[in-house]
Amino acid sequence: MASHINARFAFQFGFGRNICVLVLFGGVVGAYRELLAKLKDIDLIQQIGSLISWDQEVLMPPKAAPIRAEQLAWISKTAHERLTDSEIGSLLEQNESNDHLDEFQKANIRLARESYDRATKLPTKFVEEIAKHRSKALVSWTEAREKDDFSIFRDDLAIAIEHSRMKADFLGYENLRYDALLELYESGLTVERLDPLFSGLRDNVAPLIKAVVDGGNRPDLSWVEDNTWNQPAQEELSQRVSEAIGFDFSAGRRDLSTHPFCGGPNPDDVRWTTRYREDNPFGSLFGSMHETGHGTYEQGRPRDFDFQPAGKANGLGVHESQSRLWENQVGRSREFCEWSLPLWKQCFPENMEDVGAEQLWQAVNLVEPGLIRVDADEATYNLHIMIRYEIEKQLISGDIEVDELPDAWDEMYQEYLGISASNRSLGVLQDVHWSMGAIGYFPTYTLGNLYAAQLLEAARRDIPKHDDQIRDGEFSHLLSWMRENVHSRGSVLEPADLIEEATGSAPSPDAFVRYLSSKVERLYGVSA
Amino acid sequence: MASHINARFAFQFGFGRNICVLVLFGGVVGAYRELLAKLKDIDLIQQIGSLISWDQEVLMPPKAAPIRAEQLAWISKTAHERLTDSEIGSLLEQNESNDHLDEFQKANIRLARESYDRATKLPTKFVEEIAKHRSKALVSWTEAREKDDFSIFRDDLAIAIEHSRMKADFLGYENLRYDALLELYESGLTVERLDPLFSGLRDNVAPLIKAVVDGGNRPDLSWVEDNTWNQPAQEELSQRVSEAIGFDFSAGRRDLSTHPFCGGPNPDDVRWTTRYREDNPFGSLFGSMHETGHGTYEQGRPRDFDFQPAGKANGLGVHESQSRLWENQVGRSREFCEWSLPLWKQCFPENMEDVGAEQLWQAVNLVEPGLIRVDADEATYNLHIMIRYEIEKQLISGDIEVDELPDAWDEMYQEYLGISASNRSLGVLQDVHWSMGAIGYFPTYTLGNLYAAQLLEAARRDIPKHDDQIRDGEFSHLLSWMRENVHSRGSVLEPADLIEEATGSAPSPDAFVRYLSSKVERLYGVSA
Repeated sequence: MASHINARFAFQFGFGRNICVLVLFGGVVGAYRELLAKLKDIDLIQQIGSLISWDQEVLMPPKAAPIRAEQLAWISKTAHERLTDSEIGSLLEQNESNDHLDEFQKANIRLARESYDRATKLPTKFVEEIAKHRSKALVSWTEAREKDDFSIFRDDLAIAIEHSRMKADFLGYENLRYDALLELYESGLTVERLDPLFSGLRDNVAPLIKAVVDGGNRPDLSWVEDNTWNQPAQEELSQRVSEAIGFDFSAGRRDLSTHPFCGGPNPDDVRWTTRYREDNPFGSLFGSMHETGHGTYEQGRPRDFDFQPAGKANGLGVHESQSRLWENQVGRSREFCEWSLPLWKQCFPENMEDVGAEQLWQAVNLVEPGLIRVDADEATYNLHIMIRYEIEKQLISGDIEVDELPDAWDEMYQEYLGISASNRSLGVLQDVHWSMGAIGYFPTYTLGNLYAAQLLEAARRDIPKHDDQIRDGEFSHLLSWMRENVHSRGSVLEPADLIEEATGSAPSPDAFVRYLSSKVERLYGVSA
Repeated sequence: MASHINARFAFQFGFGRNICVLVLFGGVVGAYRELLAKLKDIDLIQQIGSLISWDQEVLMPPKAAPIRAEQLAWISKTAHERLTDSEIGSLLEQNESNDHLDEFQKANIRLARESYDRATKLPTKFVEEIAKHRSKALVSWTEAREKDDFSIFRDDLAIAIEHSRMKADFLGYENLRYDALLELYESGLTVERLDPLFSGLRDNVAPLIKAVVDGGNRPDLSWVEDNTWNQPAQEELSQRVSEAIGFDFSAGRRDLSTHPFCGGPNPDDVRWTTRYREDNPFGSLFGSMHETGHGTYEQGRPRDFDFQPAGKANGLGVHESQSRLWENQVGRSREFCEWSLPLWKQCFPENMEDVGAEQLWQAVNLVEPGLIRVDADEATYNLHIMIRYEIEKQLISGDIEVDELPDAWDEMYQEYLGISASNRSLGVLQDVHWSMGAIGYFPTYTLGNLYAAQLLEAARRDIPKHDDQIRDGEFSHLLSWMRENVHSRGSVLEPADLIEEATGSAPSPDAFVRYLSSKVERLYGVSA
């Protein structure tokens, strides 16, 4: 391909023209296009993999599991073979010495380099060993949780931690080993950046929660708890809210799955799922708004950069900001409750007969410390994450040994949330992440909450009538702002730089603390 | 891999043993395993392709069509690259000289050779040209059909026919060019084998239909036509009948699609679809039984040969025999109507209140010549196919020119079915096949009908109480017979040999003619 492009441009611009131009429009442009062609090839494999993974979660008949695993292994192997192709290495080198690339092109090179280095720095044997251990650890974690016995998982966790340390050493880092793990889930993330964010939360949110608990002002939820909420009506509510927000169902789907997620192969085919519990309608609605947030982000990606890394959605933290924005910042606002109340009444005429917007708002904003992260409310959630972050840092550095972990966990829950687990299953064994070797992942959840608050504060400056619009169900203004300032920027910037470009300031906990303090004061009449 | 196997077997059997054994268990077994590994790789790609094609037909959001086409093109390209890998060529040669392979192993070599030759004999440029022309011809055919104007499609059809001739020349044949095309859809099929089958049908079925028409004894269908048949009840009927036949829904699915089909990647994941019309319930039920037939065949494949060509279902004719068996031979039998009547009454209590088994049986066996193949009944269907077969033969040989085709079509309909189309859309433009270059495909439909009758006649010899069992809804005896005599044999034999092995005689129209004559006599009191 390179030589073909070379000849064509030489002809077009005339031989003997400035040699620099020839290089620019010939070999180097050729090298860029060649690299893009290889990246597109890899992206198509990953798109196909994403589609059959979606099918696995949502539709697959049970007996198909073993052969599906073989299909997915084929996808991984093929993608890995192509990603580690040494030609990509030399094309990257050629492109890295090219000073004439624009912003998006440079981002493509930077991101492709990241993937290539990650894929080539880890020895194949080590990757296989990790994958094998993951399957084993998943089994022992499941058994340990079922039997409420940490010792069953202990050895495999110790190995997973050692694997994470080795992984960090292969990948390299400047200051802390843990930084190399954080970087895997959000580009540019370090302990140095994260510590101030979490300490801001600890200093402000923990006292706020304590004030709420001490106030003892729990809203009456009998209208929720004493009713049955039928699934078809929950489905209708989810569908109508998602449509109203602006999810494009001609380029996506809503389905049912055990573990809600947003997936699908590309922006024209974005698939989110939810689940329904007939004893509580909030999980499906707020889950749907959460996934709708992820989904609108995917649908808003810059389409001139299909199949290119710079055209992808940014890191996990930014992705989570979009889901948390619609789920919490919008979905749990007083204005949204006012807008959605008539919809609630249409879907559940009997259950909602005597319920007003104020009651609905109070119910969806219950603040109550609990042991389980996935059930946590907006205020306590980040403390669950903070505890995991502090523990991971110390596990990787060796400041906590695996055997000390369960007690360390319980002590932190007592300190920050004022509660203790009666057993290990409700404590240190509750999350699947560590058994999967996903150490460094948890912090992106909190980043999402902080970014969401920071983005909405910035958006409000451009959309002064935001609250009125939400009350009227006019969500397009906020969505357009996100499209312009977040979605359309793809991965051209590192996540922290994208947040700074969009909001005018570096990532910080301040907007979230302001948002939460004001809300808690309105709801519970308390402040920290 | 070969050298590893070599060393292992040399050790096991001792060095210095008969060199032939060493070759057998060393290099040649190595070559066989190496070939299987390559075939498994190709099969996995095709499984993945089949899954995302299913998704395209059934679930895909509309905007995703263009990128899905790119994903599917990637699959085709990758599968083709690997199938034409010259290493497969040399592995095939090594295996072809090995006399120690068993029946299944030999079949694997034979079938892999067929695929390899097909893939390598057609020049890549020619394949691309055909694919490009197919897209163009599909457009002109669609327009011609809509505007009822054959001239719009004429030139593209002429090119498609020329392409088919060239394809036959590339692939090679012994007697007739058309044989090379037939072979593409059913291994070993030739005009020499087909002519006697179709002439047997022409001589016997055409007079039978004429006798029915002359008798003028049309059953009263007002109970069908004057009612509305709601979709949920049709779905329940389809589901319960499919379960009763023995389709395993833990290894498959039922869904809705515009064009009913049976697909899915492998025997653990077989997916069939149907469609519903509220003015007529028979399409969905018999469509479901048809696809259930295809589905049980896929689920019954020999599982020791997963990923191997010999473990696949046999050609299109045998596949169609399984669908026609359950749709027609079983589904339209008097005994099945007796068994299913209570189910009908449960699903449609009002519509079915006064309907008895005899009325149901008459309604699902209406014999009435019509212009449209896909709407044809069991008796007239094969004459539609015969007409297409005669025309294809003559188009490929040049005995009919494209310009003579529309009139030739109408004349044959007049001659064999006693009716003429009032326009080209109801005549020569009705089927999509030729626009897709699928010349040689139609005959497999009739083969399916003939094989089904022949198989059931043979099965009855082993299952003397067949009619009683159907009346009692005991379908497992017939399904087991098909499992043992057809499904579990995979593609180890050529289709005609499989039919002979299972039934004791070579493919023939006799069983079908006997079956149809007896049924028509019982229903209409006439004979040919």
